[in-house]
Amino acid sequence: MPQTRSVRMSAWAVPGIPEIVSGDDLVEVIAGALVAESGDVNAGGLLDGDILTVTSKIVSKAEGRSVEAADREQAITDETVRIVASREHPNGVTRIVENRLGLVMAAAGVDSSNTPDGIVLLLPLDPDATARTLCAGLRQRFGVTIGLVITDTVGRPWRKGQADIAIGAAGIHVLDDLRGTADASGRPLAVSVTALADEVAAATDLVKGKAGGLPVAVLRGLGSHVADLDAPGARSLVRSGPEDMFSLGTKEAWMAGFDEAHDESALKEE
Amino acid sequence: MPQTRSVRMSAWAVPGIPEIVSGDDLVEVIAGALVAESGDVNAGGLLDGDILTVTSKIVSKAEGRSVEAADREQAITDETVRIVASREHPNGVTRIVENRLGLVMAAAGVDSSNTPDGIVLLLPLDPDATARTLCAGLRQRFGVTIGLVITDTVGRPWRKGQADIAIGAAGIHVLDDLRGTADASGRPLAVSVTALADEVAAATDLVKGKAGGLPVAVLRGLGSHVADLDAPGARSLVRSGPEDMFSLGTKEAWMAGFDEAHDESALKEE
Repeated sequence: MPQTRSVRMSAWAVPGIPEIVSGDDLVEVIAGALVAESGDVNAGGLLDGDILTVTSKIVSKAEGRSVEAADREQAITDETVRIVASREHPNGVTRIVENRLGLVMAAAGVDSSNTPDGIVLLLPLDPDATARTLCAGLRQRFGVTIGLVITDTVGRPWRKGQADIAIGAAGIHVLDDLRGTADASGRPLAVSVTALADEVAAATDLVKGKAGGLPVAVLRGLGSHVADLDAPGARSLVRSGPEDMFSLGTKEAWMAGFDEAHDESALKEE
Repeated sequence: MPQTRSVRMSAWAVPGIPEIVSGDDLVEVIAGALVAESGDVNAGGLLDGDILTVTSKIVSKAEGRSVEAADREQAITDETVRIVASREHPNGVTRIVENRLGLVMAAAGVDSSNTPDGIVLLLPLDPDATARTLCAGLRQRFGVTIGLVITDTVGRPWRKGQADIAIGAAGIHVLDDLRGTADASGRPLAVSVTALADEVAAATDLVKGKAGGLPVAVLRGLGSHVADLDAPGARSLVRSGPEDMFSLGTKEAWMAGFDEAHDESALKEE
């Protein structure tokens, strides 16, 4: 039997978020913008089941995660757990690295757009923890059961362009595990686990845009994916270890194999 | 100056799409469902600027792209341009391959869920061409300027879970190239190209779900991304060649390097 339950989803960016500086209380800032936009002092225009997404950049700014741009390369090195791939180009070297959050990103996620001159921004210290703080604070402030996702923008292997993913999450099922459930014909859906939080991040990027000034969005209509505050965060979306078939770039892995064979030959010759 | 233009986006799945069989005219099927849902015989409830997404599975079914399940491994081989990575597991071997559409996908995109027993589905023959046909047909039928994206579900390196991407597109800017434009502080956005069509696919997956029966969705509010019918399709989202730093899995690249060193040693010894 075809499924006919149809979800109507809507999404919009919240206007009026001011420039964020170190020490700002993002619960207060976001709540204020929601009240101003909606005229609803009680619930900020939010409903149970809404999901808020917050661009990581304003979390980093509130946490004072800025460093001098002169230290950009050092900042990338400091945020790096290991180098996955690197490529030289006319303007320097792009390093794709795994950072301390387990995220594989160009420049470790160190960002120099939408920042004051001479300053670069590091990613938030613990985006899952911050997502819980923001989600709990806004739930309490407005008396609504919402989810919250902290987003960042990443490049992807094999695909041009960048897309937003979830780097922090609270109060939302980040994965929708459909394994064991049935498709429309009653056959088991063998390998279907939807990366909900990443799709939520991508969806709201379409209304936030990249030019700045709209770092917060509301997504309405997906209340079935809102969860307890202690549900696993975005860290659980990281695929690593033996499951990761792309732990090194092709060039880097090729060279590691080449060197290994040479080392073996050298040992034999001794 | 912070940007305050706020887009309100909405999305919903179109109910009432029947089981698709080979030879079905998808323009007629989708138009019929839109009219039935909206009660609007003239425009099917569509507005200029709407973007439709269509799950590739129904395109494959309409194109008769089914093969006997006994030939599944052969079907994957036939769709494969080259093997990117493979991994043995208790139930067999997973092959991540580049298929003839340039897409890097597990099992080349050959699908056995939501299909009759004993049948697997290949990806559409030319999803960009089909997207143009469907987009042109629906534009003409309803007199509205819409965009259309054909979606499929893929796994991603480094991230758990799957997300929808665009494998065919027409009448939409698949990339939003913001390079050269300015951020909120007036600084140039150096490396910002948004993969719009992929984010559109991900957004509507949230309302279509995976259980089947809802293979078509409407996304409203992004009319600024609707384009001429001959705008570049989803093929232009494929990153390949020297730009692709992950053209081989880590294990495969390592072994290629290892073998190369051995071959060199062997040549020296001759």
